[in-house]
Amino acid sequence: MSVTTPLGFEAAGVAAGLKASEAPDLALVVNRGPRQSAAVVFTSNRAKANPILWSERVAANGTVSAIVLNSGGANCFTGEQGYRTTEATAQAVGRALAVSPDDVLVCSTGLIGEQLDLQKLESGVEAAAGGLSRDGGQDAAHAIMTTDSRPKQALHEGQGWSIGGMAKGAGMLAPALATMLVVLTTDADLEAEELDEALLGAVRVSFNRLDSDGCTSTNDQVTLLASGASGIRPTVREFTDALTAVCLDLATQLMQDAEGASHDITIEVRGAATEDDAVEVGRSVARNNLFKTAVFGNDPNWGRVLAAIGTTSADFDPYAVDVTMNGVRVCHAGAPDEPRDRVDLTPRDLHLVIDLFAGEATATVLTNDLTHDYVHENSAYSS
Amino acid sequence: MSVTTPLGFEAAGVAAGLKASEAPDLALVVNRGPRQSAAVVFTSNRAKANPILWSERVAANGTVSAIVLNSGGANCFTGEQGYRTTEATAQAVGRALAVSPDDVLVCSTGLIGEQLDLQKLESGVEAAAGGLSRDGGQDAAHAIMTTDSRPKQALHEGQGWSIGGMAKGAGMLAPALATMLVVLTTDADLEAEELDEALLGAVRVSFNRLDSDGCTSTNDQVTLLASGASGIRPTVREFTDALTAVCLDLATQLMQDAEGASHDITIEVRGAATEDDAVEVGRSVARNNLFKTAVFGNDPNWGRVLAAIGTTSADFDPYAVDVTMNGVRVCHAGAPDEPRDRVDLTPRDLHLVIDLFAGEATATVLTNDLTHDYVHENSAYSS
Repeated sequence: MSVTTPLGFEAAGVAAGLKASEAPDLALVVNRGPRQSAAVVFTSNRAKANPILWSERVAANGTVSAIVLNSGGANCFTGEQGYRTTEATAQAVGRALAVSPDDVLVCSTGLIGEQLDLQKLESGVEAAAGGLSRDGGQDAAHAIMTTDSRPKQALHEGQGWSIGGMAKGAGMLAPALATMLVVLTTDADLEAEELDEALLGAVRVSFNRLDSDGCTSTNDQVTLLASGASGIRPTVREFTDALTAVCLDLATQLMQDAEGASHDITIEVRGAATEDDAVEVGRSVARNNLFKTAVFGNDPNWGRVLAAIGTTSADFDPYAVDVTMNGVRVCHAGAPDEPRDRVDLTPRDLHLVIDLFAGEATATVLTNDLTHDYVHENSAYSS
Repeated sequence: MSVTTPLGFEAAGVAAGLKASEAPDLALVVNRGPRQSAAVVFTSNRAKANPILWSERVAANGTVSAIVLNSGGANCFTGEQGYRTTEATAQAVGRALAVSPDDVLVCSTGLIGEQLDLQKLESGVEAAAGGLSRDGGQDAAHAIMTTDSRPKQALHEGQGWSIGGMAKGAGMLAPALATMLVVLTTDADLEAEELDEALLGAVRVSFNRLDSDGCTSTNDQVTLLASGASGIRPTVREFTDALTAVCLDLATQLMQDAEGASHDITIEVRGAATEDDAVEVGRSVARNNLFKTAVFGNDPNWGRVLAAIGTTSADFDPYAVDVTMNGVRVCHAGAPDEPRDRVDLTPRDLHLVIDLFAGEATATVLTNDLTHDYVHENSAYSS
């Protein structure tokens, strides 16, 4: 189960020497066709890294031959020199694969504000191109890791076609993507416009509902590549459903490996007037540091949930809300219900249900608690 | 320098037994006149505690005889019983002072979702009313503390008139107020409308620019009481300037005592197209957990500053921005400038200057770092 499971794809992951640890840090995924259609979603952060600026241009015409991804440096806020490094990386891939560099996407992840070593990138690209294989998906998934403790991969098997995926990301996971790089591959025979529609639909309810720490990265990119090698054309609806399942699988893996987290929190908002309201409420709770530290302390502090809801513009009456934690309704109609000490927060999973009683819409937002380990990892990251 | 420094005010602080620690937990401040004009600003949180619901009614006509404040419980999400407790507290003050309960403000702070003990409150009110004195400001400032490590007080001496103030708050300090209770007193001879204008102007650039952890409390209240006892009428402009200075003094004390903080961060945004843009940028940086943990780690990670700015809707070009930390310009025109290791973050104060080069507007936002002690205090608060 990897990005090379679908027909038509090869991949490799190598150590280019960008990471001081000498761990693998460069991944290459190539689409051998027969078609090379693609759809890409980029970070909503207006401060965009150089690989984002480059890839936005490449993706515009819906044709992508290959994607190269490096960990060990974000190449963000590195000025014109940084942009030239990205461009030269795509050119190196173009030379090695005999494709146009204008059809090569580039992704980078790591520390902001430092130049990448172009020579190392070029040697890494050569090594990766030489090592491409139909079994390379696993190595590629390893090479894109930063603070991830494990690679994240997913697979959906359709009727004669499949979707494979890999992802990295362990912090800065917030709406409109995160320090999250995702590559999805499929051998379904779909046009770029069909991929666009499917990807937007899938990302909206998966990666865009993952909010580990409220921070949005400068480098996020979710890429979907289709080779058409199966010769099968599923409907866009069928394909979108399958793609959504793969994206939710990867998003859940990202939540479960979030930096320093000791709880995975699924916030299910029910009874909202609109889906936007439901998402706003879920996100507000997901970003409330006081709630997140309480969960770390195994404290079912539902008052902090209601205080977070109170800062939203969603349609609700604070004195109509129910809050349930792991099956125990601790708050009914905005007042204490079952005793809070009946809630067992020792398991890693917390299922929080908020019922607004304002309508029929629902949404689920994934987040984590705020822990000593989160503070430790993120206070030490660049030093 | 306390709320009883201005003429016409008496105060007391007593232990009513609401806190398990038996520390002082009930404060009473009385305006003996000759005038009893008042202005009040309440939390923007839509989930409002019972004392907020009560005090909004009391404040509507601009006349306030007394304010009673308790720590040891927020009386929020406590239903109708909770509202009756607030009302009965005001009635107890009315009986003790022979004033109308409809002219008595009530403030509460502490854990959400638990009932306050009305008998203890009533006994506490009697004791406080019996102990009122012209020297009681200091005791009152102590009695409103929760996780505060010290009382916060401030004073401005005008020409024959003065403003005194006290505040509590150590977490949940966010825009549109915080778990922050503030009482300001003056013997200047001003109408309620004049006090309103002055208070809104002062709060806008002081307490509303303090954002310790992005969380907005259900119980915030800033109250300004005028006795007119000096017989002097400063201009509203003159009075607003003085009030602003007192509020900034208290806001700075709140920042310096924020829960678990090891750095006080002053974010000065310059060159913004509008003041709203400047505030949005400052607030976005103040709420970025990755930036806040980096500062805790003494890491001048300016990339996280730019990533936070990139999530705003403010007018700016990411590749025109300068960032200066404690006098060292680490980022110029969106690219690395002076080496980051020249920034000394070992002092408690960090002065961060962000120049957007998009206009002439400026704003300063006060915040803190995100530390192990913050996580510890807030994961253990209710247990």
